[in-house]
Amino acid sequence: MELFSYFRSSAAYRLRIAFNLKGIEHQIRPVNLLKAEHKSEEYLAMNPQGLVPALKINDGRVLTQSTAILEYIEATQSGQALLPSDEFEAATVRSWVNQIACDIHPVNNLRILKYLSNELGADDDAKNTWYKHWIEVGFSALEKQLGDGPFCYGEQVTLADVYLVPQVYNAKRFHVDMSQFPKISAIVDHCNTLDAFIQAMPENQQDAPK
Amino acid sequence: MELFSYFRSSAAYRLRIAFNLKGIEHQIRPVNLLKAEHKSEEYLAMNPQGLVPALKINDGRVLTQSTAILEYIEATQSGQALLPSDEFEAATVRSWVNQIACDIHPVNNLRILKYLSNELGADDDAKNTWYKHWIEVGFSALEKQLGDGPFCYGEQVTLADVYLVPQVYNAKRFHVDMSQFPKISAIVDHCNTLDAFIQAMPENQQDAPK
Repeated sequence: MELFSYFRSSAAYRLRIAFNLKGIEHQIRPVNLLKAEHKSEEYLAMNPQGLVPALKINDGRVLTQSTAILEYIEATQSGQALLPSDEFEAATVRSWVNQIACDIHPVNNLRILKYLSNELGADDDAKNTWYKHWIEVGFSALEKQLGDGPFCYGEQVTLADVYLVPQVYNAKRFHVDMSQFPKISAIVDHCNTLDAFIQAMPENQQDAPK
Repeated sequence: MELFSYFRSSAAYRLRIAFNLKGIEHQIRPVNLLKAEHKSEEYLAMNPQGLVPALKINDGRVLTQSTAILEYIEATQSGQALLPSDEFEAATVRSWVNQIACDIHPVNNLRILKYLSNELGADDDAKNTWYKHWIEVGFSALEKQLGDGPFCYGEQVTLADVYLVPQVYNAKRFHVDMSQFPKISAIVDHCNTLDAFIQAMPENQQDAPK
């Protein structure tokens, strides 16, 4: 399988973690967003949204949207299960996933930040405040729902961790004070001691600047 | 089951459609967002995010996040299947779902629009332009991916329709020119001839203003 990725894309980062956890053989195909490779005719033919990630499966067909890809991987691939077997528990994990995937991440996406400055005249301060605000709103609610670790869902690593780690990576880039969120911080610190998470880090990607 | 809903919430609207399509017995519990009932201590104890919808299942446990709830319903309830049985096809439908649930809807949520005016000084014109922009970006990509109907996924009604219909409802409220999107428009017009969709419409809810 070919995973179209950009080292700093948190949606691609999710897939990299999950593929590592499950031990799925794959090739990373870097898409340089700074060179607008995601807006090339070739890439748009594969993904009309022009976003990373995309996944080309063995028969050449393409899937887009990280959450759809992860559900597909979970349903079709062997290796470490990333959802609890009980459907209510799985729904709880999916709720955490969606709190990040819908209510935190898209609001802080690069295209949104660009719109804020280009169309609404927001300066860097206003953009940083915006960024921190939506992370803090989301993390405050999430912090109340999590237990004592070591993972979001107790002893089992799940998709919730797969989404949380890249989101915290972004939060730190924007200097969010993570001491407000001790449970989230402890879970992410634990995840980041594991090979699957370390190898998926932006700075460890082939397309990261040296 | 008890579905905590607000007539105009599009995430609650999704659940109302799906529950009707599947014929799931449930009671609607209106949560008046204008009276800040979602910020009450009682509601926050159930859903720390303070968002609708939430679902209380028969044993009293609560689920949040529409996409997590819909996956739960799909996995546990009988009635009309809302995902194709083939996993690749299901992933394609989930990709459409997530294009709406992550990349269109949250960016235009009420709390975002409030932030734009309260913190960034955006006037009504700037907010309407913002709203239309993200719908048009999302729908333009989606329009390229859809077939000739009658539903998003051909002859079978799926979660993609469950998400698309409320999003188009919002688009029309904000006067988006839907003639740009003939496939989306035809699919939604078709859905809105069906009882399950009609009964779920905001104006047909018990908490809609008379």
